Amino acid sequence: MAGLTQVAEWGLVETPILLTNTLSVGKVSDCVIKWMTKKYPAIGAEEDVILPVVGECDDSFLNDAVGRHIRSEHVYKAIESAATGPVAEGSVGAGTGMITCDFKAGIGTASRRVHADEGHYTIGVLVLSNFGVMSNLRIDGVPVGALVEPSYADTSRRVSNYGSIIVVIATDAPLLPSQLGRLAKRAALGIGRSGSYAAHGSGEIILAFSTANRVPRVAVGMTTTLTAMLDRATGPLYEATIEATEEAIVNALCMAEDMTGQGGNFAPALPLDRLTEILRAHGRGARA
Amino acid sequence: MAGLTQVAEWGLVETPILLTNTLSVGKVSDCVIKWMTKKYPAIGAEEDVILPVVGECDDSFLNDAVGRHIRSEHVYKAIESAATGPVAEGSVGAGTGMITCDFKAGIGTASRRVHADEGHYTIGVLVLSNFGVMSNLRIDGVPVGALVEPSYADTSRRVSNYGSIIVVIATDAPLLPSQLGRLAKRAALGIGRSGSYAAHGSGEIILAFSTANRVPRVAVGMTTTLTAMLDRATGPLYEATIEATEEAIVNALCMAEDMTGQGGNFAPALPLDRLTEILRAHGRGARA
Amino acid sequence: MAGLTQVAEWGLVETPILLTNTLSVGKVSDCVIKWMTKKYPAIGAEEDVILPVVGECDDSFLNDAVGRHIRSEHVYKAIESAATGPVAEGSVGAGTGMITCDFKAGIGTASRRVHADEGHYTIGVLVLSNFGVMSNLRIDGVPVGALVEPSYADTSRRVSNYGSIIVVIATDAPLLPSQLGRLAKRAALGIGRSGSYAAHGSGEIILAFSTANRVPRVAVGMTTTLTAMLDRATGPLYEATIEATEEAIVNALCMAEDMTGQGGNFAPALPLDRLTEILRAHGRGARA
Amino acid sequence: MAGLTQVAEWGLVETPILLTNTLSVGKVSDCVIKWMTKKYPAIGAEEDVILPVVGECDDSFLNDAVGRHIRSEHVYKAIESAATGPVAEGSVGAGTGMITCDFKAGIGTASRRVHADEGHYTIGVLVLSNFGVMSNLRIDGVPVGALVEPSYADTSRRVSNYGSIIVVIATDAPLLPSQLGRLAKRAALGIGRSGSYAAHGSGEIILAFSTANRVPRVAVGMTTTLTAMLDRATGPLYEATIEATEEAIVNALCMAEDMTGQGGNFAPALPLDRLTEILRAHGRGARA
Repeated sequence: MAGLTQVAEWGLVETPILLTNTLSVGKVSDCVIKWMTKKYPAIGAEEDVILPVVGECDDSFLNDAVGRHIRSEHVYKAIESAATGPVAEGSVGAGTGMITCDFKAGIGTASRRVHADEGHYTIGVLVLSNFGVMSNLRIDGVPVGALVEPSYADTSRRVSNYGSIIVVIATDAPLLPSQLGRLAKRAALGIGRSGSYAAHGSGEIILAFSTANRVPRVAVGMTTTLTAMLDRATGPLYEATIEATEEAIVNALCMAEDMTGQGGNFAPALPLDRLTEILRAHGRGARA
Repeated sequence: MAGLTQVAEWGLVETPILLTNTLSVGKVSDCVIKWMTKKYPAIGAEEDVILPVVGECDDSFLNDAVGRHIRSEHVYKAIESAATGPVAEGSVGAGTGMITCDFKAGIGTASRRVHADEGHYTIGVLVLSNFGVMSNLRIDGVPVGALVEPSYADTSRRVSNYGSIIVVIATDAPLLPSQLGRLAKRAALGIGRSGSYAAHGSGEIILAFSTANRVPRVAVGMTTTLTAMLDRATGPLYEATIEATEEAIVNALCMAEDMTGQGGNFAPALPLDRLTEILRAHGRGARA
Repeated sequence: MAGLTQVAEWGLVETPILLTNTLSVGKVSDCVIKWMTKKYPAIGAEEDVILPVVGECDDSFLNDAVGRHIRSEHVYKAIESAATGPVAEGSVGAGTGMITCDFKAGIGTASRRVHADEGHYTIGVLVLSNFGVMSNLRIDGVPVGALVEPSYADTSRRVSNYGSIIVVIATDAPLLPSQLGRLAKRAALGIGRSGSYAAHGSGEIILAFSTANRVPRVAVGMTTTLTAMLDRATGPLYEATIEATEEAIVNALCMAEDMTGQGGNFAPALPLDRLTEILRAHGRGARA
Repeated sequence: MAGLTQVAEWGLVETPILLTNTLSVGKVSDCVIKWMTKKYPAIGAEEDVILPVVGECDDSFLNDAVGRHIRSEHVYKAIESAATGPVAEGSVGAGTGMITCDFKAGIGTASRRVHADEGHYTIGVLVLSNFGVMSNLRIDGVPVGALVEPSYADTSRRVSNYGSIIVVIATDAPLLPSQLGRLAKRAALGIGRSGSYAAHGSGEIILAFSTANRVPRVAVGMTTTLTAMLDRATGPLYEATIEATEEAIVNALCMAEDMTGQGGNFAPALPLDRLTEILRAHGRGARA
């Protein structure tokens, strides 16, 4: 994830966060700089330069990644069309060529509200999900992958690369950078519940940011006053992050459809009917 | 975990690894030094001193921890009675006062064999399990804790402290220190599958060591030849570690029995009959 | 340094910080627990247990370290006699058996005041200095060690072990734990200026704490308000830390005297007259 | 430094290492991908994709950084003209707009040979030096910056940004990735000796690689045999790295000349005659 060294060292996110495929990360970073320096002329002049935060996963099974088809207009449109409201999931944007546990996946999102005496906090998680092998897929603790795998025995696809996942966690809880770092580590537990064993070569990149404490680029004085969570109160946020991460991965899978990509490579959608059956047989959804 | 800084920096384990309760970690460390310097007089004389590796969890709900009842003879006996063969589980040794997800727990162990072209490798995991809250307990993906919790509504015990877990991973696979560090991180995924959200204050301390490459204390020359796993081949070891960690925690729970401790504090054993029922109702054990 | 894992993860120091020799770290830790639980009976009862912070260096060249001569009364006296005012330096306390760049050293301390618009902050540094080889010793940038080395050609002492150093940094500047971690890293630059190359086996353990934000052990609510330094304002604190660390090491050397230890092992004091000459010849002290 | 996450996690460098200015890092990364995928068509096809390693410093005082003038042909030429032999220093390549301690600097390089029983190892260091304030500059331990500063009182330049430095260390010593990480940390001590206090906002990015153990991209089997340095033998390499880093920074300063950049911004060269005088007055070069 380009720009991450700076985020880790400074605890600040200074640019939009973009997601793309591995071989386009330089191009996208370059376009973000172009867009930002045009919009904020002080960057690189009176003020410091910026290092864009760009996450990536490898989509070269379905996508002609080497062709590097991302152009400036895609990046500009992505930034300018960012909006509140429902988030598109599945095969959209960077998610277009992504695969999870051998099924078509992509972008997924989920959130939780944590109630506190003084109000509530929201944790929102967005994943670019692109990891794993079918036999390991678990949904709500049920070994769905192992159960459906026999039906996919003749699927040509068996990628050598385990893939990776990008997780972006946003919250309005007033967490300090060190607390956000610990929150990010918990998201890994949600990924693990989905069946990841975080193989070598698998880049689990997790970035958590808070909107609560904003730091001006040009500051006066030597100190500031921050609102911070008490460490002892962070437990519900941790639980919320693990749950939302697990759910976001399921959503990335459930919202994607069959896709045939470059070279005729095929990624099947997760069979939702079969999934419902399996979950019922394992005591889930018994309410119905 | 005392001595861990050195292990992390040097990639070497030079002493037996002992587990105890938090307030006895100094005492145990001191006794290990006494035992080691007596047995190996070169330590602190011709050779470097040692820093014992001693892991600890807090057992002050059941144990009179402040009384610090561990004495030299307990430490010596622990070291001298170490043996191959089946490992005692549940309320033994450091595990005596441990609790997991509000049930009596303690020591648990599990292992996996990973088959390779050139033979096979073994991963052994031992846990000192002392973390979590009942509502989160999952066994094999089934939310057992939430299902049994209503039966324990009147239990007085509600500890404020989330607890922690020590995981020791031993393998004969020729992993380098940096590879062992990555393996250790994967164990956290197994803990997560058991229902941990790794609360603040929870010390997940995970130590992995390999018996494959032994380094002499007094070495000659400048270089050595090591056998190392190829990073791309570590996946099965990662999977084995996650599985064995999850299973070791279940074993720590299943092998422990009801315990009444200091001040009349009570920790119930996991109800095994009820567990079997629940797992069946969730599609497990249908083979029977 | 025992207890450091917890400090790093929680950003809290909950006990006195003690320094001793390597083989006594367990004993000292045990005594701190005894002292603390007696003084604060809530520890391990209504409140969480504690993990003492105990730093150590190896003094087995001069000291009968294996004899482990530290007893409870030494630890209690050290805690109870802690006082404000001038700090004893050289061969005192844990410093008694320490050696730096082949000269007798031990405890050293130095401090700086950093002036700010809103008042000033103090940085105090205390070192337990026990590292290095003579040829590398630099004082105020002058290669003193290489210049005096020919006079020590027949000294029997040539330890195989490079040694280590413990640095404790205290400040009233309101630094967050992550900022304290970064401050601690800067102390390494001060050690480097003294001639350390931080050899393998050398444990540079640096702990920085701030007295500005105190966190109650038993907290209510979910959030707190903290005063924090602006990251951009930390530069003068970094400079102060590097300078004070370098000076504290010099003080540890200059305040120690010749010592003959166990087995007749001898560590000479830094020759202060010779040092003054050398510094003058290198353009220092020309004011006189 | 783009691509660094992967290097740190995998311990492998898979692309040329390029240096540029901050706002061009995306563009350069993109061009490296274009060049690499053309030359090695297996990338992103039968083999994994790549993440280029691109280091950067901010040159926006002298350079029209926002103009982003680096084009494909510059990147291609840089890669294709890489050659053995003397390395150009000062205001060349990425070094063109760099400033160190308020003097014109840029690229600097130095190396050391470490003799061993079995032959010798070479440590080569290349820096892109762009950090610091004049008052802190030290050369060979002499406070040159503070001594010359009065002559530069009317210099308009006073940048708000402390700057940063990229250090690339190459060696033929057979160091493992974890050993290379430790070697890289020692380079920071060399930077510190030059007067850096590693201010906030200063990115000290240090990458060390070894040419000794090469890992094939497509490997067979599960294990490999590596030659590794014994940790105890790494001391001379640490010393060599610190010395060569300190010298490389001096070389970057001494090889650069006065430069007037964008907007008439001026960076003076280090006054070499004055430097010689000062070093003599401080007992250096007395051999002459």
